[in-house]
Amino acid sequence: MAPRYAPSLRSRLAPLLLIMQMGFIVVYCFYTEVKSDEKVDGSNFSGFYPYFQDVNVVVFLGFGFLYTFFVRYGFSGSGFNFLVAAMATQLAVILNGIESWYYRGKIMINLKSIVVAEMCTVSALVSIGAVLGKTNPVQLILIAMLGVSGFVLNKWLLQTLLKVQPLNSIMQLHIFGALFGLVLTWMLYRKGSVQGFEKEKPDRKTGLFSMLGTLFLWILWPSFNSALVEDDIPGRRLQAVYSSYLALAVGAVTTAAVSVLLSPKGKLNLIHMQSCILAGGVAVGVSILSVRQPCEAMTIGFIAAVVSTTAFGYLKIHMLLAFQCHDTLAVLCTHGLPSLLGWLAHLLLRLKDCDDQTMAIRFAVFHICTLLFTIMLSLSVGIITGLLLQLKFWRPPQDHKCFDDQAFWEFPHLAVHK
Amino acid sequence: MAPRYAPSLRSRLAPLLLIMQMGFIVVYCFYTEVKSDEKVDGSNFSGFYPYFQDVNVVVFLGFGFLYTFFVRYGFSGSGFNFLVAAMATQLAVILNGIESWYYRGKIMINLKSIVVAEMCTVSALVSIGAVLGKTNPVQLILIAMLGVSGFVLNKWLLQTLLKVQPLNSIMQLHIFGALFGLVLTWMLYRKGSVQGFEKEKPDRKTGLFSMLGTLFLWILWPSFNSALVEDDIPGRRLQAVYSSYLALAVGAVTTAAVSVLLSPKGKLNLIHMQSCILAGGVAVGVSILSVRQPCEAMTIGFIAAVVSTTAFGYLKIHMLLAFQCHDTLAVLCTHGLPSLLGWLAHLLLRLKDCDDQTMAIRFAVFHICTLLFTIMLSLSVGIITGLLLQLKFWRPPQDHKCFDDQAFWEFPHLAVHK
Amino acid sequence: MAPRYAPSLRSRLAPLLLIMQMGFIVVYCFYTEVKSDEKVDGSNFSGFYPYFQDVNVVVFLGFGFLYTFFVRYGFSGSGFNFLVAAMATQLAVILNGIESWYYRGKIMINLKSIVVAEMCTVSALVSIGAVLGKTNPVQLILIAMLGVSGFVLNKWLLQTLLKVQPLNSIMQLHIFGALFGLVLTWMLYRKGSVQGFEKEKPDRKTGLFSMLGTLFLWILWPSFNSALVEDDIPGRRLQAVYSSYLALAVGAVTTAAVSVLLSPKGKLNLIHMQSCILAGGVAVGVSILSVRQPCEAMTIGFIAAVVSTTAFGYLKIHMLLAFQCHDTLAVLCTHGLPSLLGWLAHLLLRLKDCDDQTMAIRFAVFHICTLLFTIMLSLSVGIITGLLLQLKFWRPPQDHKCFDDQAFWEFPHLAVHK
Repeated sequence: MAPRYAPSLRSRLAPLLLIMQMGFIVVYCFYTEVKSDEKVDGSNFSGFYPYFQDVNVVVFLGFGFLYTFFVRYGFSGSGFNFLVAAMATQLAVILNGIESWYYRGKIMINLKSIVVAEMCTVSALVSIGAVLGKTNPVQLILIAMLGVSGFVLNKWLLQTLLKVQPLNSIMQLHIFGALFGLVLTWMLYRKGSVQGFEKEKPDRKTGLFSMLGTLFLWILWPSFNSALVEDDIPGRRLQAVYSSYLALAVGAVTTAAVSVLLSPKGKLNLIHMQSCILAGGVAVGVSILSVRQPCEAMTIGFIAAVVSTTAFGYLKIHMLLAFQCHDTLAVLCTHGLPSLLGWLAHLLLRLKDCDDQTMAIRFAVFHICTLLFTIMLSLSVGIITGLLLQLKFWRPPQDHKCFDDQAFWEFPHLAVHK
Repeated sequence: MAPRYAPSLRSRLAPLLLIMQMGFIVVYCFYTEVKSDEKVDGSNFSGFYPYFQDVNVVVFLGFGFLYTFFVRYGFSGSGFNFLVAAMATQLAVILNGIESWYYRGKIMINLKSIVVAEMCTVSALVSIGAVLGKTNPVQLILIAMLGVSGFVLNKWLLQTLLKVQPLNSIMQLHIFGALFGLVLTWMLYRKGSVQGFEKEKPDRKTGLFSMLGTLFLWILWPSFNSALVEDDIPGRRLQAVYSSYLALAVGAVTTAAVSVLLSPKGKLNLIHMQSCILAGGVAVGVSILSVRQPCEAMTIGFIAAVVSTTAFGYLKIHMLLAFQCHDTLAVLCTHGLPSLLGWLAHLLLRLKDCDDQTMAIRFAVFHICTLLFTIMLSLSVGIITGLLLQLKFWRPPQDHKCFDDQAFWEFPHLAVHK
Repeated sequence: MAPRYAPSLRSRLAPLLLIMQMGFIVVYCFYTEVKSDEKVDGSNFSGFYPYFQDVNVVVFLGFGFLYTFFVRYGFSGSGFNFLVAAMATQLAVILNGIESWYYRGKIMINLKSIVVAEMCTVSALVSIGAVLGKTNPVQLILIAMLGVSGFVLNKWLLQTLLKVQPLNSIMQLHIFGALFGLVLTWMLYRKGSVQGFEKEKPDRKTGLFSMLGTLFLWILWPSFNSALVEDDIPGRRLQAVYSSYLALAVGAVTTAAVSVLLSPKGKLNLIHMQSCILAGGVAVGVSILSVRQPCEAMTIGFIAAVVSTTAFGYLKIHMLLAFQCHDTLAVLCTHGLPSLLGWLAHLLLRLKDCDDQTMAIRFAVFHICTLLFTIMLSLSVGIITGLLLQLKFWRPPQDHKCFDDQAFWEFPHLAVHK
């Protein structure tokens, strides 16, 4: 008979955390250098600092509270997201600095390098949305470490082999993260997910906590999209800000409309309002360097919201039944499809600006290669990670302990509602 | 027998949202232009960006979570506020730009124009506080659309006819919003409100969510008041910041004191602490261009808090019984009276500075006209909107579905507390 | 027989608040001046404003929501923190300005003076963590007033007598606050605390509210530590930011590891994740002027988290049983010990840089004197405050009303969960 209690993670989680953390400290001791007199992208330190904090809020608070959605999984949702993000960012700073270390012997640390690292972290946080509730923190940390490594590799290869612009390669994070997460959840398929897990639902209060995370993501998404936009051409960053803002505003309204249309009773769906309103921001983020007119941003936001909400309504359940792919927070619909749409928008907008047909075809081929490369790499890394995670060694939670904080958190004095 | 289920909004809400959103996209496509090389008020883009984000937090998160107060109305409170704000801001950008479109053929978009639009949106969000819980989202959107249009008209007329300074005319938003909301709730009077609606109460957790919204409003109110202060005279914006800050701090302490005094058992009242602590900020906001000394700001904050809390204790129930005016979140006490007080403070402070008696009288007459004009217009627009909303066509919720998310949100998997 | 109802605070709280608030207004009227053309630390107004807002969020929202931890004490936790902070900041601005008033006749107000005042307030908020739940708001206000006065006195004496740098003297706030709070809770010992109070526990939702406060503190701690760092040496503030950031990130990971190790079942403890993850930030804050390398910051963060979490696991209960010191939120473990560690790190890092042995010894003696002085003063002020608070005149809540909002807040319409 299976054990009633969740397996103890003491001998897995603690050593993993301590060894990795000490390793990071050693690397930072010997191989990093702080760039003191920095000029971040033409603007100065105090001008960039608010962006730095906005991205922090997105990563630690926005995603963390978005993941408190499930009724008995709030501590895990916010706590594990926080833990994973704190580790993955440290790793990403190191990985992003390997090239600089190779040439100059030191990894540079400044506000911008931390922001870039946090964006790499977001690619892992997106994938975690697909496996949330069905994994333990040890698995989540492995996913984050391997996901971030894969994404940094992808970014570096795109920049080196295909000469993709840095910002464009970073914005592939949505595509990479969504596909990586999908492969993982497909490989970690559990029988318990056919009917939905017993505790895989929100209540009134966790729905509001999740709304809080969503609103932070929504409000700060323009900062997220524009933080790394080079300010050498004046107004470039402003363009990124208002494009994201308008796409998000349009996306919010459109999501509500489609959500009501999809419902037989004509009601809104809270989870649509929490996930799909961000689709516009994701799509514009992927095409941020080509979107110039308000018109373009708003159209992208509109289409992204329609696609995302419709896919949420129909595709999520089909993915589970047809492909045995239980996508907890529907990252395919909220990050995957909108980012593909953004990729397409980027292509079309560039083609529109091309006068020369040869140039246009060349760009299209190049752009398709970028996408295929990212897809291929994310799938490969996903399969490797999935194989690793299938080991019983990591002690995954039993089906009836899925989506339950009780398996991972001490509740010595927890109050009982009488 | 009346239908048990809430009427479906599918055929009302979805077309309304889609048609308006598509209309906005078309207008933005053909008639807007982004001012790229902007200098926002003498400071640069990166200096203004934090204000932009602060105002965003006030509008989308602060008001949204303040409106999660009621025990079964949290999704609606935050969700509808969000939806309405996203639409009203898009509309307000267009309406504010009509003059520029008339002369130059294009509506200018920059960070400042979005912030101005969000302030116009706040006038509608204030009025929604008066009708919250008793209306459906279709009605809320109509209120917001007509409210914002009326407010922009008022602002434009004040600036054009009476030569009121732009910032002063924007700050009328509290007066306009409160009166507009009061007229609406008076015209939409329901029998069910005599004893208070069954679900018109908070619980421990929604009280805390609401506290969160309040704290965001309180902390970011100085940004809200100072965002549009022209920085041509150095220190002007600083003055606005500390005036608001001090008035808010004094208001917080005074509200607590008056709340304890009003209670027979000597207890604090949570809703006083959530609404009336902002009264000082509202009053100083209306008189922001005249308040110069800490002393003045603190006195205004003190009086505003006393008036607001006392009115909340006595006036709210009288408004309902005597005038059949069920002011859900007491916008009369929290925005109406404090803003009238701010208007008075503005007058007195200007008169104090006038040496010449003729000038003083002229200013007083002009200032009284401004107020009367705003009152008249808000009442007129309110009556028109109220007549429109009384139509059964909009399918308002039944009395027993008031203050209940169930009427508007799908709860397919909502967890039951056992 | 003891009264069943909590004693009314009407005749205590309201006069106290009103008299103090009016006193503040009078002082501000006659003795303050706004420095209009300020240059805050070499950077300008708009560069400093985001720091100002970040510190506001830390003080009013971060601590406030951290204190919503207990199941029936959420309104009090956030509400009293807010009330106390609003009063203490007003007082601290006055007290910090006494010297300026003595020489120039006016107390200067600008953004920086408010930020300094809020940091003094934090010393009082830390001490409140030790007595939370067992005191009434009148007592909390007295604690805050006397605590802030004591801390400002300590700061001034350190700066004047020992020539400690201003920032270093301010950062003693953690040591001062923790010890002051410990003395108070020891002097206010209650029999009811032996078994833990009936309601001294979180539930799932208050745990999440508290997590929200923690995340805000964690994210904005770098702003808190760096806000007052003089920017005369370029990159100095950047150094403070990334040192705090890295220490916090390392602290978060380490806390999780130690928390799992301490648990027999290998589970995480929520309250560790909420308190001890900040230990790294506290320790680096105290030694902010000496920490230069990422390596140093990370090591401090690592040790602080290990010490803090271990102490939380073992020391807290011993403090209660052996010394009758019921430290509600374990401020000894979360602020006391990490700040002592920071003090030690400051000493060691300075000694490491000293070439001359005489200089080294002189600095060590000076640094030890600083600590002893702070400890002595915090204990003295704590004993005086404790004696004052023991008076029955203040009507402390009965044991069975501890950790209960019902004693202080009106619940006229509070919804009952059926």
